[in-house]
Formats: sequence, C-alpha cells, structure tokens
Amino acid sequence: MKTADVRRDIPLLEEVIYLDAASTTPTPRPVVEAMNDYFYNYNANTGRGAYGIANKATQKMEEARTKMARFVNSEPDEIILTKNTTEAINLVAHSLKIGKGDNIVVPNIEHHSNLIPWINLKRQGVELRMVNADEHGIVHPDAVDKAVDENTRLVTITHISNAIGSVQPVEEIAEITEDRGSLYLIDAAQSVGHFKVDVKKLKADFVAFPGHKALLGPVGTGFLYCGKDSQDELEPLLLGGGTVENVTLDNFNLAEAPACFEGGTQNIAGFIGLGAAIDYLGRIGLSKLEKHGKKLTEALYQGIQDVKNVTLYGSPENIYGIVSFNIDNINPHDVAKILDETRSICVRSGFHCAIPSIKHIGAYELDGTVRASMHYYNTLEEIDALVDTIKKVSKLGDN
Amino acid sequence: MKTADVRRDIPLLEEVIYLDAASTTPTPRPVVEAMNDYFYNYNANTGRGAYGIANKATQKMEEARTKMARFVNSEPDEIILTKNTTEAINLVAHSLKIGKGDNIVVPNIEHHSNLIPWINLKRQGVELRMVNADEHGIVHPDAVDKAVDENTRLVTITHISNAIGSVQPVEEIAEITEDRGSLYLIDAAQSVGHFKVDVKKLKADFVAFPGHKALLGPVGTGFLYCGKDSQDELEPLLLGGGTVENVTLDNFNLAEAPACFEGGTQNIAGFIGLGAAIDYLGRIGLSKLEKHGKKLTEALYQGIQDVKNVTLYGSPENIYGIVSFNIDNINPHDVAKILDETRSICVRSGFHCAIPSIKHIGAYELDGTVRASMHYYNTLEEIDALVDTIKKVSKLGDN
Repeated sequence: MKTADVRRDIPLLEEVIYLDAASTTPTPRPVVEAMNDYFYNYNANTGRGAYGIANKATQKMEEARTKMARFVNSEPDEIILTKNTTEAINLVAHSLKIGKGDNIVVPNIEHHSNLIPWINLKRQGVELRMVNADEHGIVHPDAVDKAVDENTRLVTITHISNAIGSVQPVEEIAEITEDRGSLYLIDAAQSVGHFKVDVKKLKADFVAFPGHKALLGPVGTGFLYCGKDSQDELEPLLLGGGTVENVTLDNFNLAEAPACFEGGTQNIAGFIGLGAAIDYLGRIGLSKLEKHGKKLTEALYQGIQDVKNVTLYGSPENIYGIVSFNIDNINPHDVAKILDETRSICVRSGFHCAIPSIKHIGAYELDGTVRASMHYYNTLEEIDALVDTIKKVSKLGDN
Repeated sequence: MKTADVRRDIPLLEEVIYLDAASTTPTPRPVVEAMNDYFYNYNANTGRGAYGIANKATQKMEEARTKMARFVNSEPDEIILTKNTTEAINLVAHSLKIGKGDNIVVPNIEHHSNLIPWINLKRQGVELRMVNADEHGIVHPDAVDKAVDENTRLVTITHISNAIGSVQPVEEIAEITEDRGSLYLIDAAQSVGHFKVDVKKLKADFVAFPGHKALLGPVGTGFLYCGKDSQDELEPLLLGGGTVENVTLDNFNLAEAPACFEGGTQNIAGFIGLGAAIDYLGRIGLSKLEKHGKKLTEALYQGIQDVKNVTLYGSPENIYGIVSFNIDNINPHDVAKILDETRSICVRSGFHCAIPSIKHIGAYELDGTVRASMHYYNTLEEIDALVDTIKKVSKLGDN
C-alpha cells in the first residue's frame, strides 16, 4: 500500500495535517471496522468453552496476541496485554524483586513513564544511577557500562527519545546487560511500527509497547513482552478474575503466564483492532514504512535547520520520526497554536512528559519545545507546508 | 425507549438469545458510533491547550467523566478512569496504607477480583476476616458488625454476587463502617446500570465500577469512585505521563486527583463511548431498567423453581439480574453447551471467577453452576425460551 492508499483509510487527514504520531495515531478504517465487527457480531467476553460467540471472541483476541508476538519475534505466551505502555513499565517496576543495595541504571532523558516508576523505588532503598546522554540526546554504551556494577538489577532505556527523537544504541547496550547479568527493559513507545523491533535481537527481558502509536491500533491498548526466562521475575499487578487456577479463602495459585498478569475483562475490541492494525502494517511493509519515515524526518530537519531563529534538537543522523525545535523569542505553545490556526497543522508543544529531557537540551526555561512527529500517512507536501509555515513564523522571532 | 428500540440498536440480538450480561453486554449502535466519531473525526491524544482536535478529544473525555460522576452522584474529580473493575479494586489494594495488626473484613462469596487482592495483603501481615454469607448468599450486617474491630482498616463487599445474584445490604453495612471508622469499598460490578447506585447514599469511600457490563459501555473501560476525603488514602498504581506536576532526576510531585492516578494514554475512545452509553441509559430511564430486570429475574426464577431435577441458588426475593442453577446429573458446562447449540442461548457455566462462592453454595463438586444474567434488551419471550429448554434438558437428569 502507498501513502495515498493509507490516507484514504483515515478521513481525518483531509481536515488536518496531523504531525503528532508520537502522542497517538489516527486509527485507519480497517482497524475500526474490525472493532465494529466485534461490537456488532460477537460482542461477548472471552473464556474458552463457553457459547459460540464467546469462543469466537476468545479465538479472535488470541489471534491478535499471536500477531503481536510474531510482529516483535516472540511467542504468544510472552505477550502480556496492558492498557498502555505506562502500565507495561509499571508492571515491571511494581513487581521486580528488588531492594536496598540494588541499583537501577536509567538515562537522564527518559519519558516520565520510564523514570518516575524507578524514582519511586528509591523509597525501598533502591539506588538510581542516572546516565547522562550527550548533547544530541544519545546515551552512549560506555556511559551505561560505567554505571553498571554487580548490584545492578535492571538497565532501562527508551528506544527513541519521545522529546528529542534520538535513536538509542539499544543493541550495543544489550551486550553490556548480557555480559553483566542485569535485567534489561526497553521502552519501545516511539519505535515499534516505524521499523523492525525484534526482541530477540534486542536481547531484552522486557519490552514495553504501545498499541495506539506507530502500530496504528486504537487507544486503550499496549503490551509487555516478557521473555519466558524472565517471567519468574515478575508478579501480577492486577489480581483477580482470570489470574488464578485455584482459590481458597486463605490462598490462591496463579495461572500460567500471560493469564496471571491479565486480571479482569480485557479491552477485547481494542486488541482485536490492534491485530487488524498489525495486518495493516504488514500490507504496507516494514521496509517501506522505515524508508518513508526516514525521508520525512530528513526533509523536515533539513528544511528548517538553516532557518534563522530556529533551534533544532538532536542530530540529523540520529533522529527518527520526531523533530523537536524552537523559534527564538516565541513560546513553543504559541508556535503550535499558530501552526494549528493558520494551516491546521497538529504538533505538540511543551515538556512532552519528559521534563528531564527538556532540561537536558536546555529548553526548560523556554517552556519546552515544539515537536512534529510523523508516520507513513504523512506526505512530503505536508512537511513542506510545515517548513513554509515555520519559515514565516520564524520571522516573528526577530525582535 | 422500549426494549424493542434497544434491540434495534444491538444487531447481535437477532442471532442469539444473549443472557450473559454479568460477563459483559453487547454495545448498542449509538455507543459504537460515538467511538467511531472519535476515530474518524478527532482521533488525537488528550491534553489541554494543544491543537483543535486534541482539545476536542480532551473536552469529550472530560464530558464523559462528568457523566460517570453524575450518574453515581459524585464529582468529576472523584472519578478515576481504569480499564476494568479489577484495576479499580487493585488500585485500592496496592496503595492502602496498611500493615501488620490491621485487618480487612471480606465476605466469603466475593468475585476473585475482590478477594485475591486482599488475600495477597496477608504477605504484609494484614489479617483477613472472612464473613460467611447465609444459605441464600446474603451477608448479614450483624455478621459484619461482629467481624469489625478497632483494627479494621477496610470493609469490602460486592453489591450483587456475580455467582448467586444475591443483593447485599450495602447501606446497612455502611452504617457499621461509618460508626466504626473503617474504610468501605463496594464492588458495583453487577449493580451499576441496573438500578441507581448512589455513592453518597452508600457512604462508601471507594466504589469500583465496570463500564462494559450493565452500563452498556465498551470493553476496556471501568472507573473507581474515590471520595475527596479518601483520596489521601491512595497512592497511584501507574506512575508516568500525566501523573506528575514536576520532575527532577531525584524526585517528583504528584498532580491533583484524578490525574495522578491515570498514567499514560487513556482509552479515550472507550470512555467517550461510555459517556454515550450513560446518555443512552438515561433515555431508557433507570426506573424502567430496574423494573424490567426485576420482572425478567422473577420470570426466570419462577419458571424453573418447580422443575424436577433443577436446583436454584439464592432466594427469589433477594436476587437481581442473575439466576444461577444446576440440573441433576448434568454438568453445568454441558447444560450451557446444549442451550447454545439448540436455541442459541448464551449463558455462562462454571465457577464464574468466584470459587469460594461456588463452594459456599455447595456447587464446587458439580463444576459450578449455569448462570443466566439479564438486561433491558432481553424479553420475556427469551426467558420463556430458556425456561422451555431447561425443562426439556432437565428430563435428561432422570437417570
């Protein structure tokens, strides 16, 4: 499928220039239709061995789980369904057997969702070892290596910084965690769906995924890859229906993973939609997705890098899908507002739920940055429209 | 709106006799359409002060929150969005400041989701005080009163037993918790949407609600009512984006409730759908809903209570919306299968995620019960069809 085909499936793109994929992506028609099919034709709760439509709902949701698993090169029983990436990360943070004397290694440019759960563990005596990124927002493996010692239980890092767009050397860092015997968690919120994320190659114990960003699934979906060898490290966060095999008034036996981690009724429609979205991405093709995203990112970066009064963050050879910038003397929120009001261009402005990242690049006192983020449905013409408008707005920075 | 009007909005009901509302309910067309409107016309992440469609998404989701709040007679900032009832209960269980010497009072007929999170607290030295229901599955206030002492931090109870259908005297128990100064949590999974659930009348600190059962909202939605006076008792379960006001590499300040409890991207479409579902219930009218459910429950109970080989659980004057039964010498799973295969009647069979309940009524060795559960979209004709089929199947029990 070409970009034009995908755009026909997303009516919203006729109305706006949507450049906020890092927040969420509009859901293509075949994904919505897969959900509607559930709602209208077999809207039942899951659970094997019940009546026909319940069995169908179960089968469809498990097919979707298998699609998620295959997409990231894992097995279905290594996929734990969550409502978003944040739940996936918190599941790990809450249940890791960790305490006084242990440390966790975290870069200083993480999204709050991959920082605050770890800061919170300091109350249990866990030491947090921050690794500083370089001026371009890259976390160097040697810096991680220096921070890791025999008491490091976990190294965590986001695959692509949501505030800067910098792609991290996650495979090189995997060599370190493998070598040093610490657990490894990757936040793939900004990478999955843009290019191949292969959990085996990443050698990660845990990878947190959103369903509703570049995967083009609906809001309300996410999942945690938890490798079979690492499942004993975790404890369920949400205990209840579906998580147990047997129960007395005194005790309970947990079900096998992933069931033990999935308490209560799941977002069945949402995950069926996510399965359809993964099929949809398959029809585009991952290599085309990656190439298109790279082209747009470069076009935007190059289009504004020499514009007077414009400051760009991240280095052009190391960012993907996200371009973060500021215009001298204009608040980023005002820039975003002008872009929306003059050309219906949808971008985010502010701290992007990553205040330490924003401080790291020196944009905290500026109230953050303007962030444009792309996907396959975006065109070069849309990037040109953004570049043109930035050029015009940048002249207002001359005061 | 009449039952016939509602049935026209749920195409699935032309295909099956759906009697499994206690698991989940089919989503009416106007609810699906409200979600589609989001997906097709303003599919953006929430966050005030961004671009137009993001502001619209934010406004629509907050309108939905206000509808949930009004529906249960509370304020919007007392409503914490969750993915299901189980998450709502676990949020309380994980974050209650509780420890050795404290006790929690729980009936012996709870759904696993309102039992296992409390059993789990025994690891922290918390004592669990089980209150036995009577033979009809009713938990008597005097039994609760006897169990409560000065070390009782929390009394919890389900409003309607999901396995038996028994409606509990939650208001009388509220007098006890108010008098004795313990916290009070009600699991309203089987009551909300069937009749008025007024958190003020219930005097509860916490009430856990599903969006996808009798409220007719979509799967993937639930919420926790947490009264303003009780919000200091809780700590966020899912820390991350949206939950904080300020962050350093060392520390963070939580945002005001409910934001601090809602980490990551919410199921925006789902909650907008739930808001539409609450409007939809309003068009039916709560008193009509309640009356209709009562009529169907009575018709089913009376229809099969004198049938040879049929055992009914719960007492007719105390059950609502759920009728649980067995047929001598036939496994409940087989009964459910026959009902599905012969008349496309969808009922659940087994332990209903409530093994202690099933043991309490003596149905554990029978592999559980058959459970029929109703809503406003069901007709007396459907109940007659079920009664007729049960009568026929019951004859097979004569061996």
